[in-house]
Amino acid sequence: MLTVNAYAATSATEPLVRTTIERRDVGPNDVLIEIRYAGICHSDIHTVRGDWGPQHYPLAPGHEIAGVVTEVGSEVTRHRVGDRVGVGCMVNSCRECEYCRRGEEQYCREGNVQTYGAVDRDGTITQGGYTTHVVVNEDFAVRIPDALSLDAAAPLLCAGITTYSPLRHWNAGPGKKVAVVGLGGLGHMAVKFAHALGAEVTVLSQSLKKREDGLRLGADDYRATSDPETFERLADSFDLIINTVSAGIDISAYLGLLKVDGALVNVGAPAEPLPVNVFSLLLKRRTFAGSAIGGIAETQEMLDFCGEHGIAPEIEVITADQINEAYERVLASDVRYRFVIDIATLN
Amino acid sequence: MLTVNAYAATSATEPLVRTTIERRDVGPNDVLIEIRYAGICHSDIHTVRGDWGPQHYPLAPGHEIAGVVTEVGSEVTRHRVGDRVGVGCMVNSCRECEYCRRGEEQYCREGNVQTYGAVDRDGTITQGGYTTHVVVNEDFAVRIPDALSLDAAAPLLCAGITTYSPLRHWNAGPGKKVAVVGLGGLGHMAVKFAHALGAEVTVLSQSLKKREDGLRLGADDYRATSDPETFERLADSFDLIINTVSAGIDISAYLGLLKVDGALVNVGAPAEPLPVNVFSLLLKRRTFAGSAIGGIAETQEMLDFCGEHGIAPEIEVITADQINEAYERVLASDVRYRFVIDIATLN
Repeated sequence: MLTVNAYAATSATEPLVRTTIERRDVGPNDVLIEIRYAGICHSDIHTVRGDWGPQHYPLAPGHEIAGVVTEVGSEVTRHRVGDRVGVGCMVNSCRECEYCRRGEEQYCREGNVQTYGAVDRDGTITQGGYTTHVVVNEDFAVRIPDALSLDAAAPLLCAGITTYSPLRHWNAGPGKKVAVVGLGGLGHMAVKFAHALGAEVTVLSQSLKKREDGLRLGADDYRATSDPETFERLADSFDLIINTVSAGIDISAYLGLLKVDGALVNVGAPAEPLPVNVFSLLLKRRTFAGSAIGGIAETQEMLDFCGEHGIAPEIEVITADQINEAYERVLASDVRYRFVIDIATLN
Repeated sequence: MLTVNAYAATSATEPLVRTTIERRDVGPNDVLIEIRYAGICHSDIHTVRGDWGPQHYPLAPGHEIAGVVTEVGSEVTRHRVGDRVGVGCMVNSCRECEYCRRGEEQYCREGNVQTYGAVDRDGTITQGGYTTHVVVNEDFAVRIPDALSLDAAAPLLCAGITTYSPLRHWNAGPGKKVAVVGLGGLGHMAVKFAHALGAEVTVLSQSLKKREDGLRLGADDYRATSDPETFERLADSFDLIINTVSAGIDISAYLGLLKVDGALVNVGAPAEPLPVNVFSLLLKRRTFAGSAIGGIAETQEMLDFCGEHGIAPEIEVITADQINEAYERVLASDVRYRFVIDIATLN
């Protein structure tokens, strides 16, 4: 057992504090990773505050982990000491169901094991990336290409794969018109990916405040959803809409922006059910769908794609002691576009 | 102008009555059809009663029309006098948009012209099949294969194509598990088609009352949705669910019955928006979709498929004077499975 420094929540209502947590010994199929950077995801905040159910505390969140392998188990073949690797939203799955076998471990029939706050298959509670080290099964660590810096690579492990996967699944590419709802941590990655995949990209944001940013990131158009004319002008025009907004939006209005056979895909989930006008679906054979992260193989593909195309998130690197303040700024949408914790500041 | 016998609504609140309506002269591209049978669709009732908006009266509903061509315009090439033909839910479209060009006139950008109660492209209000004759552009009449009787063919023009189209679009076939929600006019056709396409079929109905019928029609399994265990036992098991129930159902509960990448497709639309739990979509990349009838070419394909596979709806033939009583029985779900009006009784 290894005791390591961490920044963790001790209850649903208190700020996160410096503490320590335990890591298991390195098993034959495990790698020990010295974490260098960890991204802050909105879901970290929801989880530690109990919005999605009660938690065991102390809980160190963080599922956008980038680091370096410092030890490998006796049977490890995928990684070597010194390798630059990442860990995302899951650290285990059953490995045997039809979904695991086809590389979609995120949809494991028994449920994948989330990187923090979940019961691992050995019964222990997982702890996330706001820590100096993590021990993980080698199959759930992915290579980070040399072209990517570790700080910018971190958010790719959640914000990156969460947007890349539905764009690929719903065939974003040349000749396709893609809209991205919300220009935050996920949205700005969706814009970069959709653009790099060759699609024509429109950002749909509440206001035009970030318009210049959006166009710089690769959007061809940028519209304010607070302007009702947006919904008239853009009616029936998109093949795919990626909704990165977790708060409830008027799904039926957005469905009206889709062409025949178009899909509106949520990558975030509001706590409350969203009302859907079925006529909006029916009259153009539209679909309302959801997508959760991506499989390990697809995460590797996404990282390689980023390496080849020079794609990286826009980040603001912070120290561990700035985490609580960063949470408040995430909640106020005051970040362009992802906070990344410099884990060296935890030592 | 041709004056023809009809059974029509004169207001939203009165029973339908015998009357006459006008049909246009047969234009160069038109065919005159002597209607032999017309099916009664639930949407006839909604429309004449103004549930979906105010109507012009008198209004003769009916969009499940089977008859014989008795006159053709000078430029008609598709049909000849004596041909057995059908007319479904639409009688015109723009013919020029991307959807019309690819044979999906139901999704015409300018809106298809519905068979009754709609403004045709010449400004007149369309009248449906509870009439002795209809004049229609030849492109919107389809051939009825010799193997099908005209009375049983009629409901295929709406109930048939409405269920066949999504089953084909979402690839129902061997190795696929399909559920059909509701065993009524549409549901019983969905069961027959899904079975004939080679899928494994389960009926999900409120009770087990029609279980024997369902199995006889081709279902492999039949479950009561009033039993909460149904939703536990069948969790994550279907590739496709066709929901034929127009009333609001608990969409999120039904989404839970889908495998990863499964689709729940509504072919009816409740007046009120339906709440959707986005987590149900997200955690298995499920989709909630809608589908409206089918294109003309696909309607022909469906009729030919029925001719080849000996598929026909189960019908109860009635006289024109039984229409109002039949409406009450449709509303009480007291029909197995479609009323068809013998139009000879209108003379």
